[in-house]
Amino acid sequence: MHFCDYYDNLFSLEKQVFIIREHKLKKEVITVNIAILGFGTVGSGVYKIIKKANRQTQNLHVKHILIRKNKKPDFPEMTDSIDEILNDDDVDVVVEVLGGIEPAHQYIVEALKHKKHVITANKAVIAQYMDEFTKVSRENGVKFYFESSVGGGIPWIQGLERALRIDDVNKIKGIFNGTSNFILDQMHRTGEPFNDVLMQAQQLGYAEADPSADIDGLDVANKLCISVDIAYDLFIKPTADLPIFGIRNITEDDMAHFDQLGMTIKLMGVSHQVGNEFDYMVEPTLYYGDTLEAHTTDNYNLISLHGETIGVLKFMGQGAGQLPTANAVIQDILDIFQNKEHLKREFKSTFKYSANLTKHSYIVRSEIDCSTLFKKFNPSVRGDYLVVTDIPVGEMHRLMKQVLQKDETAFMASLPMKKGGAAK
Amino acid sequence: MHFCDYYDNLFSLEKQVFIIREHKLKKEVITVNIAILGFGTVGSGVYKIIKKANRQTQNLHVKHILIRKNKKPDFPEMTDSIDEILNDDDVDVVVEVLGGIEPAHQYIVEALKHKKHVITANKAVIAQYMDEFTKVSRENGVKFYFESSVGGGIPWIQGLERALRIDDVNKIKGIFNGTSNFILDQMHRTGEPFNDVLMQAQQLGYAEADPSADIDGLDVANKLCISVDIAYDLFIKPTADLPIFGIRNITEDDMAHFDQLGMTIKLMGVSHQVGNEFDYMVEPTLYYGDTLEAHTTDNYNLISLHGETIGVLKFMGQGAGQLPTANAVIQDILDIFQNKEHLKREFKSTFKYSANLTKHSYIVRSEIDCSTLFKKFNPSVRGDYLVVTDIPVGEMHRLMKQVLQKDETAFMASLPMKKGGAAK
Repeated sequence: MHFCDYYDNLFSLEKQVFIIREHKLKKEVITVNIAILGFGTVGSGVYKIIKKANRQTQNLHVKHILIRKNKKPDFPEMTDSIDEILNDDDVDVVVEVLGGIEPAHQYIVEALKHKKHVITANKAVIAQYMDEFTKVSRENGVKFYFESSVGGGIPWIQGLERALRIDDVNKIKGIFNGTSNFILDQMHRTGEPFNDVLMQAQQLGYAEADPSADIDGLDVANKLCISVDIAYDLFIKPTADLPIFGIRNITEDDMAHFDQLGMTIKLMGVSHQVGNEFDYMVEPTLYYGDTLEAHTTDNYNLISLHGETIGVLKFMGQGAGQLPTANAVIQDILDIFQNKEHLKREFKSTFKYSANLTKHSYIVRSEIDCSTLFKKFNPSVRGDYLVVTDIPVGEMHRLMKQVLQKDETAFMASLPMKKGGAAK
Repeated sequence: MHFCDYYDNLFSLEKQVFIIREHKLKKEVITVNIAILGFGTVGSGVYKIIKKANRQTQNLHVKHILIRKNKKPDFPEMTDSIDEILNDDDVDVVVEVLGGIEPAHQYIVEALKHKKHVITANKAVIAQYMDEFTKVSRENGVKFYFESSVGGGIPWIQGLERALRIDDVNKIKGIFNGTSNFILDQMHRTGEPFNDVLMQAQQLGYAEADPSADIDGLDVANKLCISVDIAYDLFIKPTADLPIFGIRNITEDDMAHFDQLGMTIKLMGVSHQVGNEFDYMVEPTLYYGDTLEAHTTDNYNLISLHGETIGVLKFMGQGAGQLPTANAVIQDILDIFQNKEHLKREFKSTFKYSANLTKHSYIVRSEIDCSTLFKKFNPSVRGDYLVVTDIPVGEMHRLMKQVLQKDETAFMASLPMKKGGAAK
């Protein structure tokens, strides 16, 4: 009666029956051996939760922790040899939490080829190589799971994949980045300038020394790519051609102005699907006070989907942070060993990316006069700002790049359609 | 390497391998045969979604629909004989969407005993008989799933069970009832009296002809019982002894007063767990405008949990409605046939219910003078209202029952601790 992927499943089930029988004969406790690559915030969080051996995590065992070459090991599990981990047949799962592209990419591929399941929280490397990881994991009969990479502790990937069992998902929208949300929320509460608040975020450990991925929208872009890959079953690479606009240029005066308009600004990642086309955008977005987005404060994330039968679903929680992210990593491990298979990706969708599928209205601030540039879209001056109406999103981002070339301090934000409710 | 419930699982896996092998030999498409008991809003929604044969629902087949005795069948699948369904060995799953206690209870037990998986959206019958259904389903080696019973289309049960794989969940809090939320939201927006708005809700199909379950908090009580049963692994029956206070007595003047205080009222179901104790309450609750609760409008639900490592998670979506609820029913069916086992309930927890575990402050309106009754809790008069401070929740509900005996129009709402953020 099991009707999905019968033959794949048959093999996996038979293997499990064999393993369970074998262990039953030996009457031993079955242990899942884990190697953690990297021992920063998330890596040490995974270690901490497993050591507590709570509830269903009791049989998880950290066998190796990969640390940097020549770094002194603090625990007996630590090693600086990736080969020791790859060649250890006892290792069932590799948890990659190094961050960055290389060597993370190479280690993931190698681990999969060594028939080890791979879990990663590293959104940058997944967004870049989702197609390769998917292919190599399938070829080697192992899993590649990444719940923690989008929305931290929020069960977003899981919720999205679940919705996709029944519905086409035709809208994804989210506050995907906790750091930028913290910065915008602090500026909103205190009226302080961007740079002061950024410094506070860095002191609190919310922002990196180089904050560009968070404040220029690249982190959101990666997370939106991953979500889009799953939702539409295609592979879209995060590139500079996509409409991505960050919050680096927002000033305390902008913030005060939006406040006067009764609106709150959030950095959003959004994608719509209509017929055979989809769009994709990362941009500062204004919300009225009657939305959940406007009240998603601190470093929280709020991610939504819309499906035909399910309607709107929103998930709010800790988008980053040691324990929430580590929790999501361990959920993936439990899924593997409880046979809770994630959605299969084939990347055979025929959906086409269309930069101008959706029209928005925008508020623009620039020292140069942009009225001529935006003349086709009813530009109207409102004090220090220009309002541009019903412009295709791709076109707006293209024109705004031209503005930035002449005025690198320019800022834009998309305007809400109308007063809405929780669901809009 | 499969480490949970090895031996139970072994049997189930071997059975699946056998079934898949058999079907492989016969080279036939594997069909899941479903009987739907009841063809009201949810039942016809399940039928509609299955008929569309989208995505992973293609192999679901509605074989029978149980209708009332002597009702004329509109479809060939319709029958008025429960025995025909129970005795049909081809039926894999029974979907109970009759509502009410009997005969739903009896049909569910019989279906389980006939080795059919049972899915139900009927919160009243689950809350009442969770222990029996759990026991009978286990004895007969079949599943009893009920995602749609709490939060409609919101994957709440699933999200809660998932969190429980790693964390103790020590707080559950939710806008669990769409009808009462619609009424409060409409009163808030329009300033209209309770009875007028209730009538609108009835005309829109949001409220039943007898609205008591929705407006007296009983529906919330059932859903909170189900959530508590799962969270603490114990069985708590919804009885009149529990602290349950509804919204029947709220007036347009109350609403205007709360609005002046900068607060929005919501009917909440809440439970806390501290050490070996837990509490339980259903009561109107005031929220400041900086919370997600205050902005959960229309007939939406918003349900939250707090766990040690995951922190706060909130789920927002359609708590009722035909297609969202039917979607959740079908998700349960897919879980069964994709071997995605839900959390096991043993009901062996030693947690004790403690009515007075938490203290709240309340605002009370009554035509009688309650100052003496509440004298131990710093009562202070504020216009037409009395504010009672730091009173144990159980004690408050007990005293309020005394007030209602003398003044059946009295109303109360718990006050927020302090201005909070999205996570509070």
